[in-house]
Amino acid sequence: MRLFLIRHGKAEEASSWPSDAARPLASEGRQQAERLAVRLVELGLVCDVLLTSPIRRARETAGLLWQGGAGPEPESWDALATGPELAAILPRLGGLREQEVVRAAFVGHLPALADWAEELVWGQPCGRLVLKPAGVIGLELPDSGSPVGRSGLFWLTSPKLMP
Amino acid sequence: MRLFLIRHGKAEEASSWPSDAARPLASEGRQQAERLAVRLVELGLVCDVLLTSPIRRARETAGLLWQGGAGPEPESWDALATGPELAAILPRLGGLREQEVVRAAFVGHLPALADWAEELVWGQPCGRLVLKPAGVIGLELPDSGSPVGRSGLFWLTSPKLMP
Repeated sequence: MRLFLIRHGKAEEASSWPSDAARPLASEGRQQAERLAVRLVELGLVCDVLLTSPIRRARETAGLLWQGGAGPEPESWDALATGPELAAILPRLGGLREQEVVRAAFVGHLPALADWAEELVWGQPCGRLVLKPAGVIGLELPDSGSPVGRSGLFWLTSPKLMP
Repeated sequence: MRLFLIRHGKAEEASSWPSDAARPLASEGRQQAERLAVRLVELGLVCDVLLTSPIRRARETAGLLWQGGAGPEPESWDALATGPELAAILPRLGGLREQEVVRAAFVGHLPALADWAEELVWGQPCGRLVLKPAGVIGLELPDSGSPVGRSGLFWLTSPKLMP
């Protein structure tokens, strides 16, 4: 199974909103998400499963991916907002593999997404992956057994590097 | 300094050539390298320094990057053929940083390129980076001190993911 960890697009500045969670995508962030949907479709990387953090800027990003045809209607999942413990997402990851999902996308936040990726690939989070807003991490999970420290990293990109 | 580790394009099958080192790029590999040069130029990622393994398929890849405007005339460097010891390239990496090179590209082979990247980023090679022919690893080296285990990974892509 391929797992795409997608950071929400650029959000509006926190100072204009009552809480961090209330921040919507900025105009640039909406464009980033729309463009990413186009790219994923062009690359043949439409996802079978699209899960999103319930926080507004992630939910809006996932919605734009869906509207752009890059995946099904997104399902909100609290675990994507509450990281960064990898244990919070491992059981569901296992379930997706059992269902023989080919491509799953999780839309969420830093530092959780980058930490999870490092833990899946190298066994521990190290804070060395640079994941920009609307950036993507592409992981190849092993067919069986624990994916922790055993997944391959095949893609890391950002809007600027995929214009 | 940003360091781009670039794997040679797809080479012709070994069985047709007297030695592995004699293999030229396949037609597809030439196209991959030409396309990569176009992309690097479009992205504003023209390199100041372009070093290549002296092995034919890498030399040809670097030559096409140069001809495509993605860097200066390539300089052959034996260390890029003889990996995978990171120690073989560290002194020169330090020299490039001292010269305030902004972007350097090394064209070479697996497993050395992926092993070096993992060692620079996570401190040890783990065999988890998927680097396809004409694929690129983009690293951000710290301004000072050892880059080992202290560099950031900001890009990992392949021809299929950057068409």
